[in-house]
Amino acid sequence: MRRVAISSWATSKFAKDSKMPLLELACEPCADILKRNDISGKEIDAVLFSSCATDQYSSTIISEMLGMHPRISHRIDNLCNSGTNAVASAFAMIASGLCDSALVVGAEKADSPGNKLLWDITRGSFMFPAHWAAIFAKAHMRKYGTTEEQMARVSVKNHKNAAKNPQALFRKEVTLNEVINSKKIADPIKLLDCSAPCDGASAVLLVSEEKAKKLDNPVWIKGIGQQTNSASFANATTTGDLTTIGAAKRAARQAFEMSQAKPSQIDVAELHDAFTILEILAYEDLGFAKKGEGGRFVDQNQIAINPRGGIIGCGHPVGTTGVAQVAEIASQLAGKAGKRQVKGCKTGLVHNLAAAGSSATVIIMGA
Amino acid sequence: MRRVAISSWATSKFAKDSKMPLLELACEPCADILKRNDISGKEIDAVLFSSCATDQYSSTIISEMLGMHPRISHRIDNLCNSGTNAVASAFAMIASGLCDSALVVGAEKADSPGNKLLWDITRGSFMFPAHWAAIFAKAHMRKYGTTEEQMARVSVKNHKNAAKNPQALFRKEVTLNEVINSKKIADPIKLLDCSAPCDGASAVLLVSEEKAKKLDNPVWIKGIGQQTNSASFANATTTGDLTTIGAAKRAARQAFEMSQAKPSQIDVAELHDAFTILEILAYEDLGFAKKGEGGRFVDQNQIAINPRGGIIGCGHPVGTTGVAQVAEIASQLAGKAGKRQVKGCKTGLVHNLAAAGSSATVIIMGA
Repeated sequence: MRRVAISSWATSKFAKDSKMPLLELACEPCADILKRNDISGKEIDAVLFSSCATDQYSSTIISEMLGMHPRISHRIDNLCNSGTNAVASAFAMIASGLCDSALVVGAEKADSPGNKLLWDITRGSFMFPAHWAAIFAKAHMRKYGTTEEQMARVSVKNHKNAAKNPQALFRKEVTLNEVINSKKIADPIKLLDCSAPCDGASAVLLVSEEKAKKLDNPVWIKGIGQQTNSASFANATTTGDLTTIGAAKRAARQAFEMSQAKPSQIDVAELHDAFTILEILAYEDLGFAKKGEGGRFVDQNQIAINPRGGIIGCGHPVGTTGVAQVAEIASQLAGKAGKRQVKGCKTGLVHNLAAAGSSATVIIMGA
Repeated sequence: MRRVAISSWATSKFAKDSKMPLLELACEPCADILKRNDISGKEIDAVLFSSCATDQYSSTIISEMLGMHPRISHRIDNLCNSGTNAVASAFAMIASGLCDSALVVGAEKADSPGNKLLWDITRGSFMFPAHWAAIFAKAHMRKYGTTEEQMARVSVKNHKNAAKNPQALFRKEVTLNEVINSKKIADPIKLLDCSAPCDGASAVLLVSEEKAKKLDNPVWIKGIGQQTNSASFANATTTGDLTTIGAAKRAARQAFEMSQAKPSQIDVAELHDAFTILEILAYEDLGFAKKGEGGRFVDQNQIAINPRGGIIGCGHPVGTTGVAQVAEIASQLAGKAGKRQVKGCKTGLVHNLAAAGSSATVIIMGA
């Protein structure tokens, strides 16, 4: 298998209403990467577009708008997990030798059709993601004594980090009291426990080992794990245990095995915190904290978690999120994260989920 | 690069109205493959769904409906070229070692949103694919003396082949006169020069070299070439030459180079004949006939072209087509094509396009 590096990345400002059409939004970080690296579209073999939008042949349109003629180009969709699926695809295309470089771009508008899940009747009238987040939270609180305050601390931390990120939707810190007293959405989930849909785009350029040789300090993709669990909530947990996301656990095991790294070696991580409880479950599912101790792990100082502000701080443009997470970890490992740079980080991790843990991706990256 | 084989395939009956919802339609050939090979979903690492349909997280739903828990699962769309993009993706995932087996499934309903191209204003009021087919046909007729009769012969041949294919939408032979006298759609394109949208699904199972060892006579994927040209008709031909599909020419060059095969070695081919003129252009673009001699090549006997009836005979369920083409060539090379078996074929080719040659894929397969 050829090694694959991330050579460049860019993320647009996330906004409630960017006033930009989807495909123009998608071009913004791509044009930024092309300009910054002074490369022509001819040098890029593949353009993979991650989005839940319903526009047809959108990857071809983006390529034309950028003046590019890639070999491979298509759109990939898998809800919130689309972006990390696209990165895994690009990795495979380069690792296999099918191409030498691939531009992965995610873009989404706040009104993405990916926000609503209309297929699963096992959710009954509980159509909104906050409903299942509430179920996970209640189960974890009952079994392990996790508190609403611990969940709120995740929101406080991620809003604090987002305040340092010029691309984030929310740039204002929040207090513990503000989170706990914010509007109740689905007990025990409150408004500030939730992420918000928004407009946003992000792109990363993946290159082969050969091409990476010319880079100063390439960031390598060292491990990729993925798992698809189930589309319906009724089958979401094969074990009946609602205190864990089984798909994330298995994806993490695969990624750690492939990278030969251990959870204790991770310095910086982007975890899927569409709801605060999901970050707490992730601590446990990824092996950072022991089972049941996720709530207490919120205050740890071992790993820098969600330095860009995570999904709660940055906003959640569905098909963009996975790409933006990879862009952040690449930026951190390259030492180019500006005001939010995590000092001395060498190994990073991205953890991404689709609806209620229907699928999960874990990507491990290193210098 | 690990070698990748096609171990199994299945195609549903193509119909004008199958009365089946899209995702049930998609499950049909997959269930067929699982049952026929007596394999459980656990043995399949990836499920890639090819479709232009706008349903969200459809690959996850298909996986659940089939009782499968694949690692990787997402939907791929790129108009008529979606299926061959999905096969190329699955190839890369296995060749790279990211997984050992991948089920690629294409499914589409006749009213697919992929039938309409709303983005390109350079087409003016000429929104329908038949309009650009007419432009290509006129240019080829003017420059090389290609005749309406030669185009009609493509339709006669493909309808004749389809009559032997129980899965085809059209199972009735047509005469040269019937084609020439059929309703004029956009001069010189007549109704029987055109393919028809329909419902249909097809699936292929790709496996690693290791897994292929257990097969009697695996069919190997030997070369893959892809090229994305442009989304707009204004930029479709970089050279201004409307008698060639540049994307197909470049994709073919890449595929032949990778497989180290020559056009003269191809025994059987599935060519993209959404319109008769496209099959004639393909003869030339792929190197089967000299430039300008495509019209005369229609009567050749060297290569079995479109033995399943092609797109004209089988019908054109947009996201399914590329998968069905690959399934047909695999079936031919394995000697399992029943009544339409091409005798002694050893090397096969699939050629697929998206709208007006906006992108092209060429896949070369061999025993």
